Amino acid sequence: MIAVVCLNPALDITYQVPAVDWAGVNRPSAVHARPGGKGLNVARTLRALGADVLVLGLAGGVTGTAVESALAEAGVPAAFTRIGGETRRTVTVVDGRSGSVTAFNEPGPRAAPEEFTELAVRYEKALGGCAAVVLSGSLPPGLPASSYARLIETAAAAGVPAVLDAHGDALRAGAAARPAIVKPNLAELAGLAGHPLAGRAAVASAARELRDTGPAAVVATLGADGMLAVTEDGTWEAAPPAAVAGNATGAGDAVAAGLAHGLAAGLPWDERLRRAVALGTAAAAAPVAGEFRPADYERVLAGVSVRRGAAG
Amino acid sequence: MIAVVCLNPALDITYQVPAVDWAGVNRPSAVHARPGGKGLNVARTLRALGADVLVLGLAGGVTGTAVESALAEAGVPAAFTRIGGETRRTVTVVDGRSGSVTAFNEPGPRAAPEEFTELAVRYEKALGGCAAVVLSGSLPPGLPASSYARLIETAAAAGVPAVLDAHGDALRAGAAARPAIVKPNLAELAGLAGHPLAGRAAVASAARELRDTGPAAVVATLGADGMLAVTEDGTWEAAPPAAVAGNATGAGDAVAAGLAHGLAAGLPWDERLRRAVALGTAAAAAPVAGEFRPADYERVLAGVSVRRGAAG
Repeated sequence: MIAVVCLNPALDITYQVPAVDWAGVNRPSAVHARPGGKGLNVARTLRALGADVLVLGLAGGVTGTAVESALAEAGVPAAFTRIGGETRRTVTVVDGRSGSVTAFNEPGPRAAPEEFTELAVRYEKALGGCAAVVLSGSLPPGLPASSYARLIETAAAAGVPAVLDAHGDALRAGAAARPAIVKPNLAELAGLAGHPLAGRAAVASAARELRDTGPAAVVATLGADGMLAVTEDGTWEAAPPAAVAGNATGAGDAVAAGLAHGLAAGLPWDERLRRAVALGTAAAAAPVAGEFRPADYERVLAGVSVRRGAAG
Repeated sequence: MIAVVCLNPALDITYQVPAVDWAGVNRPSAVHARPGGKGLNVARTLRALGADVLVLGLAGGVTGTAVESALAEAGVPAAFTRIGGETRRTVTVVDGRSGSVTAFNEPGPRAAPEEFTELAVRYEKALGGCAAVVLSGSLPPGLPASSYARLIETAAAAGVPAVLDAHGDALRAGAAARPAIVKPNLAELAGLAGHPLAGRAAVASAARELRDTGPAAVVATLGADGMLAVTEDGTWEAAPPAAVAGNATGAGDAVAAGLAHGLAAGLPWDERLRRAVALGTAAAAAPVAGEFRPADYERVLAGVSVRRGAAG
């Protein structure tokens, strides 16, 4: 089983509007509401890969209930810890005329320390049956940056490798707790490095610096250019056969799912990266985060290039 | 008691955004969610006036539950008929830089005929204790335009006068069922007349034509210009002491509440109109529909002008 921790899930609401009037009243022609947040996208991708998954998260209020019931309908097993605050919404407006996309992301409810402790107890019990855990997404207001680090240490004590997809202080503190893999994108890696990263050598250097702080491997995702991994088995570069524009959020979450899947299966790095790149590319081409077409995945998989020992 | 029927309530979500990026991801600095829909604004205003109120409405899904619990928290008694669909949301984005306001109003769930019948049965039972009923707001998809007319006829059979605030076919069909008062705004009255209404004489003429179709009185609201009423006791004009720009939706709902309050109390028309104009003006000055400052109300009340027999 792979446990996916989602501390700040969301109800993602999408409005299709034929032609948005930015100074008036709009009546969406279509309304979609679905569970969101990076961790839930990872869990859905793992389910689509056929993995045995358990979502552990914090949920509150009627919006939390909506997330729980929609996830159950989608066939993704979950055990949420109920919190006093109201789970956040995101609202995305798609303008049919210009194609522009406007997103409004609520910050999420404050989580109390005892609510996090309740989740951590449930998480520790679940670790007994886990081959890997994924910790993904923003921390809700009220939780310290060390929250992921604490969960990574608990996993390590139980012999379960962890994949961390976070940013800023939560990534920095989590990396120091020695997870198996951290998966920053270029902006997140540059944020940690404190300067822009121009070129492969700069990315490789920043990834090595990050790896020196604790994680066994750093996988930097580079959008349509694929990814660069600094691992216990050397440095690797992997790229899709052709650039695919699309849903970057969904792509990053699919890559995290692919890495966790390969880690749990004990695959070697070249095969992990091949699958992760193919999943990310297939997910970018899908209209909805957390989904991909299996045919896209299979087609891209055959064309992914993976090489070792490159980049600086 | 005054019963307020709200067939298509909403959860009104408001995002305050410091400077909206219409092509990017925005993080609202403040998020407010409150029960909305015209009927609920009317009920809140009646509660604030000290009236004994009962909301009768249709609510479904977790959003319906959110509306119900928020209304209970606000101290507004309600008996919702649960429906299979999900109660709608509205999302309003307020741009702190430009001051522009963008609204996205979901259409609302389809209501099934048997769900409406269940509400109508509950409504008929409640009429025994009612001095007036208010029927306000849009009909949800799935209900015929005659729905308000049916509820007005039930009220008339129980000897309870009805105030109708609707538009289009629901207004036309409802007016024919002979309610005590219909309260169109200028756009709604022009919509029924089938042509623009320029000047008081044109408004008075259209109001008389509408009154000829059934209602005992037609009160046309004219924004900051006050209102024109064609009643069983003559034609009246009422105006606030000074124009107040502000929340037009909230103003119209406050006027409907004021008219129902005066009707239930058996006040003469001049006093009904004086209070309704003062309430509408005080509500327009308030930031949130369904609310007003009592001091604003008292101050405006003293300055409202009401005259009879004018306008064409």
